[in-house]
Amino acid sequence: MSQLDSVLDSVDQTIPDALKRLLEFLKIQSISTDPAYKANCLEAATWLQGELNTVGFEAEIMKTPGHPMVVGHLHSDPKAPHVLFYGHYDVQPVDPLNLWNNPPFEPSIESTPAGDVIRGRGAADDKGQLMTFVEACRAIMNADGKLPVNVTMFFEGEEESGSPSLIPFMKDNVDKLKADIALVCDTGMWDSDTPAISTRLRGMVAEQITITGPNKDLHSGMYGGPSMNPIRVLCKILADLHDETGRVTLDGFYEGVEELPEQIKQQWQALNHDEKAFLGEVGLSVPAGEEGYSVLEQIWSRPTCDVNGITGGYSGEGFKTVLPSQAMAKVSFRLVGDQNPQKIRDALFKFINERLPADCTVEYKSKDASGATVMPVDAPVFERAHQALTSEWPNPAVYAGCGGSIPVVGHIKSILDMDSMLIGFGLDDDAIHSPNEKYNVRSFHKGTRSWVRVLYALV
Amino acid sequence: MSQLDSVLDSVDQTIPDALKRLLEFLKIQSISTDPAYKANCLEAATWLQGELNTVGFEAEIMKTPGHPMVVGHLHSDPKAPHVLFYGHYDVQPVDPLNLWNNPPFEPSIESTPAGDVIRGRGAADDKGQLMTFVEACRAIMNADGKLPVNVTMFFEGEEESGSPSLIPFMKDNVDKLKADIALVCDTGMWDSDTPAISTRLRGMVAEQITITGPNKDLHSGMYGGPSMNPIRVLCKILADLHDETGRVTLDGFYEGVEELPEQIKQQWQALNHDEKAFLGEVGLSVPAGEEGYSVLEQIWSRPTCDVNGITGGYSGEGFKTVLPSQAMAKVSFRLVGDQNPQKIRDALFKFINERLPADCTVEYKSKDASGATVMPVDAPVFERAHQALTSEWPNPAVYAGCGGSIPVVGHIKSILDMDSMLIGFGLDDDAIHSPNEKYNVRSFHKGTRSWVRVLYALV
Repeated sequence: MSQLDSVLDSVDQTIPDALKRLLEFLKIQSISTDPAYKANCLEAATWLQGELNTVGFEAEIMKTPGHPMVVGHLHSDPKAPHVLFYGHYDVQPVDPLNLWNNPPFEPSIESTPAGDVIRGRGAADDKGQLMTFVEACRAIMNADGKLPVNVTMFFEGEEESGSPSLIPFMKDNVDKLKADIALVCDTGMWDSDTPAISTRLRGMVAEQITITGPNKDLHSGMYGGPSMNPIRVLCKILADLHDETGRVTLDGFYEGVEELPEQIKQQWQALNHDEKAFLGEVGLSVPAGEEGYSVLEQIWSRPTCDVNGITGGYSGEGFKTVLPSQAMAKVSFRLVGDQNPQKIRDALFKFINERLPADCTVEYKSKDASGATVMPVDAPVFERAHQALTSEWPNPAVYAGCGGSIPVVGHIKSILDMDSMLIGFGLDDDAIHSPNEKYNVRSFHKGTRSWVRVLYALV
Repeated sequence: MSQLDSVLDSVDQTIPDALKRLLEFLKIQSISTDPAYKANCLEAATWLQGELNTVGFEAEIMKTPGHPMVVGHLHSDPKAPHVLFYGHYDVQPVDPLNLWNNPPFEPSIESTPAGDVIRGRGAADDKGQLMTFVEACRAIMNADGKLPVNVTMFFEGEEESGSPSLIPFMKDNVDKLKADIALVCDTGMWDSDTPAISTRLRGMVAEQITITGPNKDLHSGMYGGPSMNPIRVLCKILADLHDETGRVTLDGFYEGVEELPEQIKQQWQALNHDEKAFLGEVGLSVPAGEEGYSVLEQIWSRPTCDVNGITGGYSGEGFKTVLPSQAMAKVSFRLVGDQNPQKIRDALFKFINERLPADCTVEYKSKDASGATVMPVDAPVFERAHQALTSEWPNPAVYAGCGGSIPVVGHIKSILDMDSMLIGFGLDDDAIHSPNEKYNVRSFHKGTRSWVRVLYALV
């Protein structure tokens, strides 16, 4: 039995223990966006530190003004390549809670027609995914006593809340984080039999907008007519953000957005994406993005604008004829190509300020800002990883796009001057950020095996 | 001392007791729109029944499918006129709770630069107002042993939640409620020295609109672009409800809306309404209603459309890049003239259905529907009440409009075939339906005295 085979065998033998560890991790309520869960985030970081240490890493918890980072080193051979593995231990909020079939932080292994799944908040995003890499390292260490490459682990706890501490932390700790290439496990497979290396990520700009009209809530019988209603103002502004064809109307929004090269367009067409099934799965039938683009193009290569939340006035049981003092919306843009996040934020401010009627004021709370990324898939290391993945799964690996934003990839490039390779084992139906999030046991198991193969392939 | 003077004197002497009774009443959390407060509504009805009985009425609690009615009779002389007094014992919800300086259901008498006020939810709308009439009857009974007119009391507990039981109840109990004229105390003074008889009420149509896109909440990284966002759809529909000049764009909306007769326009101009102060009080400066109309005209004689509440997606702390499955808004229209509530509701349905994109569905929950009312101010009984009010207050009474909707006035006309006279002692700064609602002690005291005068004037 080759070294690789004996490690893979060890992964297979110890999967029940690995799952047990993951369930423990998933019980920790590390919701980073809500300050009420601060202690839970520290608990998750501490748990991870402990796990890394049992694998053989020298791991430490490093404080930030927000939630702490976990950094661990296991350096076997100064002449071997050095990889930085990034993941995040924080998770999304869980509301609407009533849509969960089981409590989000009481994870379990559930038998389904499509195989066993790990159910719970963070199962796929990103606790289950990051643990595939940790468990791969554990299996190699158990079987071989050393890793084929030098590994630095880097876990943050603010990915789901805009990563406010990430940039300063990375700038202050370049020496601790610098490696030859970064590996990131926060993306998905092409389908359940086809692994993927993600070659592009969309960037993001997010903004919270609060419009104030009258200085208190008013009665629409007494003031309805002469009083400006901030919900009406907000709705008009949000409605104006798209034109009839689905394009975003901000000044200069499409600056830096390039049409897709014909070669990549053909590559994507060859994937035979089943648009009908993709949309049908979530109850939709017609692509709602810009006219003239396929669904994959709309997700992977076109920018968007979406309202992620809105609130104002009375929305409880019954009716209340109130003219509210305030209305609020959370708006985000997904960016592609060379779109400049700051220019787009400025264009948004200008757009809103120009549309603000007399007697209304606006307050902004700026959140994420990150540009899009395209990976250097021609580098040999990508080809080696591609082969390693192809050995593990029924179908050959594909190079795919990704509609999400993983801002850290941009920072790894700009601060650490490193490329990133994005390999993940999530599936489209994992319901990340939604109620009843899950991660297939097969993703977890074969994901761990995939990392073992990739790590040996990198030497 | 005349009979009238001795009753007025008795009102002055017993005002501390009357205030104590009102504070007791205000402690009862009779929020009708929220089913959680069902028992509190019954408690308020029972309290009122008890008070009426102590005054000398034969009062009973009459069940409905919703909150109960309270009906009481005190008939002194078959040959005397017979009045029906209507009020409501339910109150508005109290959110946003954080804007109250004191808990809404711990009422107190507060000293302010403008005199003492009764502070608490319902102080003005409508518990304080209805108690002016109850206390007037009590004072007359105490001093004289009988009322100058026959009085039927009629209190409902669903006024703030669309009065679902009102019409069937009135139809089933015409004999118990029928009188010569109705008196309603749910309106305001022209200013703190000038009493008013309200001569017109706006009608109302209210609708809750829920739009569903995808069948679950989605991640905007995975679906942003091709997935229709129901918040965006809802905002577009709501934005389209007004044109640039502030007019409502529903088909046929202005059918039945007549321009104001020149005589009434002049009457209103003579009131010298201080638009700047009226708007300035709530932090506004520019009338936001239809162009070309004064503020009073916008409130009293023009119809409106307002969004009273909106919600969708994530609106908590931080940010969540969710594409929500649903978005909801509560929309209401204030009606004037002969606008037909059902036609307007149908036009709204048509308007929305026409704008619904593929993959979106809409669900409606219909609330209030009532037409506008104009009172027969030429009838002699109005002139007598006008004189009675003028005797009590520093300035002569005025005939004023009212922008609010008191649907019961329409039902009193259509079901009981009676006119209503609307006299109330609320002030513009009472903050009804808002945090920190209050009712001036002077309104309560002189309001009670006013009713004594009106009741003697009606004979």
